[in-house]
Amino acid sequence: MSKGLPKRSEDYSLWYNELVKRADLAENSPVRGCMVIKPYGYSIWEKMQAELDRMFKETGHTNAYFPLFIPKSYLSKEASHVEGFAKECAVVTHYRLKNAEDGSGVIVDPEAKLEEELIVRPTSETVIWSTYKNWIQSYRDLPLLVNQWANVVRWEMRTRLFLRTAEFLWQEGHTAHASAKEAMDETVQMMNVYAQFAEEFMALPVVKGRKTANERFAGADETFCIEAMMQDGKALQAGTSHFLGQNFAKAFDVKFATKEGGLDYVWGTSWGVSTRLMGALIMAHSDDNGLVLPPKLAPHQVVIVPIYRGEAELESISVKVKEIMAELRKAGISVKYDDRDTQKPGWKFAEYELKGVPVRIAMGPRDLENGTLEIARRDTLTKETFQLSEMPIAEKIGGLLEEIQNSIYQKAFNFRAEKTTEVNSWDEFVQVLEEKGGFVSAHWDGTTETEEKIKELTKATIRCIPLDQKQESGSCILTGKPSTGRVHFAKAY
Amino acid sequence: MSKGLPKRSEDYSLWYNELVKRADLAENSPVRGCMVIKPYGYSIWEKMQAELDRMFKETGHTNAYFPLFIPKSYLSKEASHVEGFAKECAVVTHYRLKNAEDGSGVIVDPEAKLEEELIVRPTSETVIWSTYKNWIQSYRDLPLLVNQWANVVRWEMRTRLFLRTAEFLWQEGHTAHASAKEAMDETVQMMNVYAQFAEEFMALPVVKGRKTANERFAGADETFCIEAMMQDGKALQAGTSHFLGQNFAKAFDVKFATKEGGLDYVWGTSWGVSTRLMGALIMAHSDDNGLVLPPKLAPHQVVIVPIYRGEAELESISVKVKEIMAELRKAGISVKYDDRDTQKPGWKFAEYELKGVPVRIAMGPRDLENGTLEIARRDTLTKETFQLSEMPIAEKIGGLLEEIQNSIYQKAFNFRAEKTTEVNSWDEFVQVLEEKGGFVSAHWDGTTETEEKIKELTKATIRCIPLDQKQESGSCILTGKPSTGRVHFAKAY
Repeated sequence: MSKGLPKRSEDYSLWYNELVKRADLAENSPVRGCMVIKPYGYSIWEKMQAELDRMFKETGHTNAYFPLFIPKSYLSKEASHVEGFAKECAVVTHYRLKNAEDGSGVIVDPEAKLEEELIVRPTSETVIWSTYKNWIQSYRDLPLLVNQWANVVRWEMRTRLFLRTAEFLWQEGHTAHASAKEAMDETVQMMNVYAQFAEEFMALPVVKGRKTANERFAGADETFCIEAMMQDGKALQAGTSHFLGQNFAKAFDVKFATKEGGLDYVWGTSWGVSTRLMGALIMAHSDDNGLVLPPKLAPHQVVIVPIYRGEAELESISVKVKEIMAELRKAGISVKYDDRDTQKPGWKFAEYELKGVPVRIAMGPRDLENGTLEIARRDTLTKETFQLSEMPIAEKIGGLLEEIQNSIYQKAFNFRAEKTTEVNSWDEFVQVLEEKGGFVSAHWDGTTETEEKIKELTKATIRCIPLDQKQESGSCILTGKPSTGRVHFAKAY
Repeated sequence: MSKGLPKRSEDYSLWYNELVKRADLAENSPVRGCMVIKPYGYSIWEKMQAELDRMFKETGHTNAYFPLFIPKSYLSKEASHVEGFAKECAVVTHYRLKNAEDGSGVIVDPEAKLEEELIVRPTSETVIWSTYKNWIQSYRDLPLLVNQWANVVRWEMRTRLFLRTAEFLWQEGHTAHASAKEAMDETVQMMNVYAQFAEEFMALPVVKGRKTANERFAGADETFCIEAMMQDGKALQAGTSHFLGQNFAKAFDVKFATKEGGLDYVWGTSWGVSTRLMGALIMAHSDDNGLVLPPKLAPHQVVIVPIYRGEAELESISVKVKEIMAELRKAGISVKYDDRDTQKPGWKFAEYELKGVPVRIAMGPRDLENGTLEIARRDTLTKETFQLSEMPIAEKIGGLLEEIQNSIYQKAFNFRAEKTTEVNSWDEFVQVLEEKGGFVSAHWDGTTETEEKIKELTKATIRCIPLDQKQESGSCILTGKPSTGRVHFAKAY
C-alpha cells in the first residue's frame, strides 16, 4: 500500500527524499541544487502563501517588488552582510551569448562583459535600503511596512529538496521605523505572526526565541526565530525575524527628519519564511504510508472514491456523491471526486494516503442501499461507517477536519515535549543528544567560544535562547562557568 | 491640481514616465533596466494576477515552479529559440566572491567558475520541456496544463518602466497535448482568456490575431496575440499565445505512447502576459491629471475625504462616514477613508486624481445637515450632489462603478475605432501613419521581404493578421502584388 516508501525508522533521510518525489511535491532539476516544485507541492505552497499574505496585510504591510540583481558594490556596503553572503552567490558577469566562430555552438560573448558584476539576490536588504533612501525623508514617511514575495539564490554545496536549495521561494519583509522600540516591536510581532501561522495552519508547535550572536543574520543586531522539532529528533529553523538596528540605514545613508526637528538614521527590520516550510510540514507529520497534511493546508481536504461494478452502479453512486459534494462545498470544504475507471479503488486509496488527503470517503452499492458512507482518516488510518441520517454530512466532515487539525498538532506537541530534555552535566548532554536527540535544554556560559566548541564536539548548535527561558542560576555544561539561563541545543537541519 | 504632470499632447512619453513615478507605480532601480514596483503599483498587479490566476484555474490549469537558471546547452537545443534569445541574456559564470588580496574590496573568485554557464531564464520552454520528458510517458499523462508565475530577464538595451524592462514579472503557461488539434485549441483558448481579461477587467478593447512568420515567438509554429491601441496612436502587444507544434518535444525528446499503441512526439503550447500590462493599463485610460483606473482593478474603488474645521466637525462627519463605509464594504466595494489632518482636502483631491481612484466622496458639515454627499467621478472629472435618502448608498456607488467600468471601455473602444483606418494606396498609408497614427488596415503580399521593407520605410510593423479578417481581394500597398487579405499595420511599443 505504501508503494514501497522506505521506512522512517530505517532511513529517515531516504524516506523524506522519496516521499517528496513520489507524492509529487518536488524533484531535482537539471540545474545543480535547484528544484522543480510540482503542481501538487505548489498548491500546498499557494495555500501557505495565501494565509501568510493575509496575516501580513492584517498587520499593515503591503507588497512590492525589487530587482533580482544586486550590484556587487551594494552587497559590500554592510561589512558583516557581505561576509555572510559572498561565499555562496551566483554572479552575472555577461549579458550576451554568440555563435562560436569555429561553429562549435553558442558561447559567452567576451565583448558583452558587464562593467560591474551583478549578484543574484541572496536576500534584498541592500537593494531595498538603497531604494528606501529616496522614499524616506521625514518621520511622516515612517513606518514603511513592505513585503516582497520572490525567489532568491544561495549557492549551497549540499542541497536537499525544500530544506536547502540553491534557489528557493520566500517572502522577505523589510520595514523602516522612527525608533528602536518601534522596530523591535515589529521584529517581535512578525516572529509571533510566524509562530501563529506554524501552529494554527501547519499544526506545528514551535519554540520562540532569540539567536545567539554567532547565529544571527549577517547585518542584524538581534535575530528572533521559531524552531520546530522533526520526527527524527532534529530541529528545523522555520522562520526568522531580524532587528537590524541602524546598520543598513548607516550603510545606505538613510536618515529622516525627526518629529523633534533633528536628523537620525532610520531603524530597520527584516523577516522571512521560505519553501523550507514545506520541508518542515512534510517531516513533522508524515508517516511510512506517505504525507499527512493538516486540513487547513490540504489542496483537497476530502476525496471521494466510488466502489462499483459496471456503469449502472457508478451512475447511481455518482448521483448521491454529487449531492454530498455540493453540501461539502457549500460549507467551504474542498472535495475531489475520483471516478476514474483506469485505476482500482485499492490503488486510489494508496495514492491518496501517499498524498496526505485528510479524509477519504468510499461509497459502494451497499452504502447506497443502507444510507451509509465509509469515512477514513489519514492521520490515524482509522475508518468508520457513517450513517447519513445521523447528522448533516457537512457538519460531520467539518467537525472531523477540525478534530484532525487539532489532533495532528497535539501529536506533534506531545512528541516535542517528549523530545525536550533538561540536562545538567556534560555526560548527560552527550548521552541525550546521541541516544534520544531532540531539544536539549542546558546551561551555557554565554560565549561564542564555548558554543563553537560544543558544536565541534557534538554537532549540536544553540537553536535559540527561548523567550520563556526559566530564570535559574546554573553552570555551563562544558566549562562549568556561571550561566545566565538554559538555552535549547539540538542537531538541526 | 495636476502636480505639474506634463501634458499628453505636448510630450506623451514624458507624461507616461512622470505619471508612473508620481502615482507611485514604479521607478528605476540602481540596476540598469530593472525596475522597482512600488506598493501602489504592485497592488494593481496583484489584482490582475488574482483574476488571471482564477481564469487559468477555471480552464483546468495548475501552477508549478521551475528553476530560474537554464544551462547554456539547454537554451541551444531548439535552434530558432536560441537565435531569438541569445543576444540579450544575463549569464551566470561564477558562484562565489572573495576578498581581493590587495585589500581593494570584494571580487569574483576566479576559482569558483561554473563548468557550464547558466542563463537567467528569458522564458522557460527549454527547462520545462526537459522536465516534461520525465513526466510524460503515455496519452494518460496528457494533457499537462501547467502555469508558472515568475520573473524573467531579457537584457534589453533601451528600457521603459513596465513596457520594456530587463527583468519583468509574468506568467508563462506551458501545456502538452496528444494531438495538434488539441494544442491548437488550447492556444486559441488562452488568447481568448487574455482578450476577455483585457476587455472585462482592464476595460481595454483588443484585436485578436495571428502574427506573421517574421514576428512569431522563437520556436513557435504559430503565434496568436492581442493588440491594444494607446492614446498616442501606437499599438501595444498585450499578450501572446504560441502553438509550438512538436518543436520542443523534438528538441528534448518528449514522446508518448498513443492510445492507438504508437509512439509520437508531444504537441505543445506556451502563453504569457507580463507586467507590461501595467503599461497598457496606464497608457490606455489616463489623462493629464493622472491615472484613470477601471474600478475592477483599482486597489481602492472609493475614497472618502472629510471637509471640516476642528475636531468636533471631524468627529460627527466620521460617525456618518463609518456607517457609509460599512454599507459599501458589505456590498464588496473597497473604500478608503482619508482623515489625515496633515493634508488639506484640495491636496487630497489632487492626490487621488493622480492615483486614479474611480470615485471620490467628499462630506462636509453642510452635507451632514442636508443628508447629502458630493460624489466625483475620476474618469469624467464630473461631480454630483447625492441625496442619501434617494437610494441605498451601496446601490448608488455599485451602479456608478459599473457605469465607470463600461464608460472607460467604451471610450477606449471609440478611440480605437476612430484610430483604425482602411487604406488602399502607398501614399495614403504613409500619410495616415504620419498624420493620424493608429491601426492601418492594408493589403500586403504575404512576404517577409515586403513586411521588412515597409518597416524600414515607415517604422510600422504588422501587428497581426486579425482573426476577423475581411475576405476581400486586393493588391499589396507596397508591391502591388496580389494580397490574401488586409492586415493591421501600426507603429508599436
